[in-house]
Amino acid sequence: MARIVMKFGGTSVADLDRIRHVSALVAREAEDGHEVAVVVSAMSGETNRLVGFVDALAADTKNGGAIDDEYDTIVSSGEQVTSGLLAIALRRRGIKARSWQGWQIPLQTDGAHASARIKGIETLAFNQSLKDGIVGVVAGFQGISPEGRVSTLGRGGSDTSAVALAVALGADRCDIYTDVDGVYTADPRIVPKARRLDRIAFEEMLELASQGAKVLQTRSVELAMNNKLPIRVLTSFRGIDELNPGTLVCEEKKTMEERVVSGVAYARDEAQISLLRLRDEPGVVARVCGVMADANVSVDMIVQGTSRREDSANLVFTIGKRDLEKALSALDENKDRIGYDSVLVNDKVSKVSVVGIGMRSHTGVAHTMFSALAERNINIEVIATSEIKISVLIDADMTELAVRALHSAFELENP
Amino acid sequence: MARIVMKFGGTSVADLDRIRHVSALVAREAEDGHEVAVVVSAMSGETNRLVGFVDALAADTKNGGAIDDEYDTIVSSGEQVTSGLLAIALRRRGIKARSWQGWQIPLQTDGAHASARIKGIETLAFNQSLKDGIVGVVAGFQGISPEGRVSTLGRGGSDTSAVALAVALGADRCDIYTDVDGVYTADPRIVPKARRLDRIAFEEMLELASQGAKVLQTRSVELAMNNKLPIRVLTSFRGIDELNPGTLVCEEKKTMEERVVSGVAYARDEAQISLLRLRDEPGVVARVCGVMADANVSVDMIVQGTSRREDSANLVFTIGKRDLEKALSALDENKDRIGYDSVLVNDKVSKVSVVGIGMRSHTGVAHTMFSALAERNINIEVIATSEIKISVLIDADMTELAVRALHSAFELENP
Repeated sequence: MARIVMKFGGTSVADLDRIRHVSALVAREAEDGHEVAVVVSAMSGETNRLVGFVDALAADTKNGGAIDDEYDTIVSSGEQVTSGLLAIALRRRGIKARSWQGWQIPLQTDGAHASARIKGIETLAFNQSLKDGIVGVVAGFQGISPEGRVSTLGRGGSDTSAVALAVALGADRCDIYTDVDGVYTADPRIVPKARRLDRIAFEEMLELASQGAKVLQTRSVELAMNNKLPIRVLTSFRGIDELNPGTLVCEEKKTMEERVVSGVAYARDEAQISLLRLRDEPGVVARVCGVMADANVSVDMIVQGTSRREDSANLVFTIGKRDLEKALSALDENKDRIGYDSVLVNDKVSKVSVVGIGMRSHTGVAHTMFSALAERNINIEVIATSEIKISVLIDADMTELAVRALHSAFELENP
Repeated sequence: MARIVMKFGGTSVADLDRIRHVSALVAREAEDGHEVAVVVSAMSGETNRLVGFVDALAADTKNGGAIDDEYDTIVSSGEQVTSGLLAIALRRRGIKARSWQGWQIPLQTDGAHASARIKGIETLAFNQSLKDGIVGVVAGFQGISPEGRVSTLGRGGSDTSAVALAVALGADRCDIYTDVDGVYTADPRIVPKARRLDRIAFEEMLELASQGAKVLQTRSVELAMNNKLPIRVLTSFRGIDELNPGTLVCEEKKTMEERVVSGVAYARDEAQISLLRLRDEPGVVARVCGVMADANVSVDMIVQGTSRREDSANLVFTIGKRDLEKALSALDENKDRIGYDSVLVNDKVSKVSVVGIGMRSHTGVAHTMFSALAERNINIEVIATSEIKISVLIDADMTELAVRALHSAFELENP
């Protein structure tokens, strides 16, 4: 007998038929004698519908759009409905089940509305319920703030709910069901030859997730890694008796495969900002980063004095596209303090990354990568590296070409 | 400065524009310096959508349809969303506001799922919030069970939430906003000359509500009467500056009008059951009522041995149409115990009632009523009376004719 946490995303519970199918998947684990907790997202489309209401009201005033603690109360209702429906579907199969809202467990957060972090999970009652043989169906994405208000974990937060719950419950594993059948060497829509990985190390998954692979939320991978909790990513869109191995995200020593690069990721949601004719004095990078931090904008890639063009900037950095307006007005307000002449913005860029734990011990990855891109005449605007990742910023139109070139250069199609 | 509870039903918060209008109505009271609590229903259609999900899953098994405690978790999400949206709309007008779910107040219930009764309302935190000048927007229809689960009060329960909250808070009045502009002497869709009443006594409102007038939920009137809390029924579908007197439901001595009959109500949701050739022995009525009670079926009108036709029953009673199947199978199972020959069912019946506190001191109401019906050749199947009400069961096709005849016989069109 094991203790299992299963998580189902929005497309997996999109309608009543999908919820019935999910109930079959859960029932099988329960009937095998396992203790099962299930974490569910809102039915797909539901969160957008609710956010649409909030946005429409927020737009009524100029200073609208500010994070409102009522957002959490409204949007969390989506997961509430799914949790109840799945509990009913399970009961209809003769499985004992009940729903749990964030405030019922309770799952305590720091109260940061719409982007809360989990502070703790009280497991006394939940544990007892599992031991009594009752499947616990948890509304994901939500918790309770120190003030007793509903607070939500931010988009994709249900993955984090699931992993955090699995850690708190001492679960043997956490199965994340989604609409793809595992983690791929690249987006199969771009690279038809992309291959499902049987296993991947936490660190690699973390880099892939942060670099744009949408299969798992970054925070959930971080949490699993820190607690050495294996995650299995698999699809809920397969018949109950079909083979469904998925991808196991686990510790490096268990990944076994001898790979240099595990995958290629891409992200289109960044914008490039170039500060032209920046005053040449110490501390300028720190000042720019300080201004961005004060404006609550995360800087991703940053590079100083690398441009090959004479009239261009000597500081280039990237931020999330959604923060562009905020960033530009902060730069404008601090123009004298930073000391620059003008700003260039390019939001037609893509970040393409290769990720692999093998990079630690293998040389030549950068050379292979840059050669492959150069052969296709793809210009690199910015480069950023970590121990197990190399990212390049390129023209957005070149995204697919670059991803395919890199996939092939590292022979990812071959197991 | 007064303390006011305002309640808005589903049509009053049907979409974002209506919610904005409601926020204007609430803002006016708050800006006048009053302490304001607001109770809201789900956006109209939302409860049906959610109940549809539950029913579809319940239908998956033969013993489906049983009341499930997950029903409450699912359906209560409708009010949750509205409460958050109205709080945001109020903030957008510069009014301090926050939403309260049943579990947050908390509003404690007896835990009977889908038909819970309110056991108590903890007002400490809510009171303080009102005193701090924060409008409290309460999700109606819901509370928390002794086990910490969400429990709902049954359809129309938001009226009861509002009155119970007003009583617990010691409010000066409770304003129930709806889609009609008050309580009428009869349904204006049937009687064009029907007149809005300025005032009506609690007892009359209670009888009208129980006899089919849908403007207020019976339990809410009962609660207001027991606590002498005046309720004002008025429309939310009028411009903010238009006259909107509504109807005040209050104690008898304050109603002032010298009326014998205050209104005519009708209900089409009952079915008539006749037990034919019933054994003539004592206690038979008690046995039938016992069988119905065991089957959880409420008997409304009941009459023994009054039929004028020779071959027909000597026991006739009415029950809610929704309970018909349950009632018939209970009768069938207990056929020998009760001792009858056969059962006749007639679900093409209507109950028409005249209600008025004046009946206590005026004679001749029954005579006027029966004469008016006889003149139109309307046959009376069953009669039931209380101190301030006379109800008759008639052919459903005669409903409109009967209501109009009675409205005119009691000269209700004249103030």
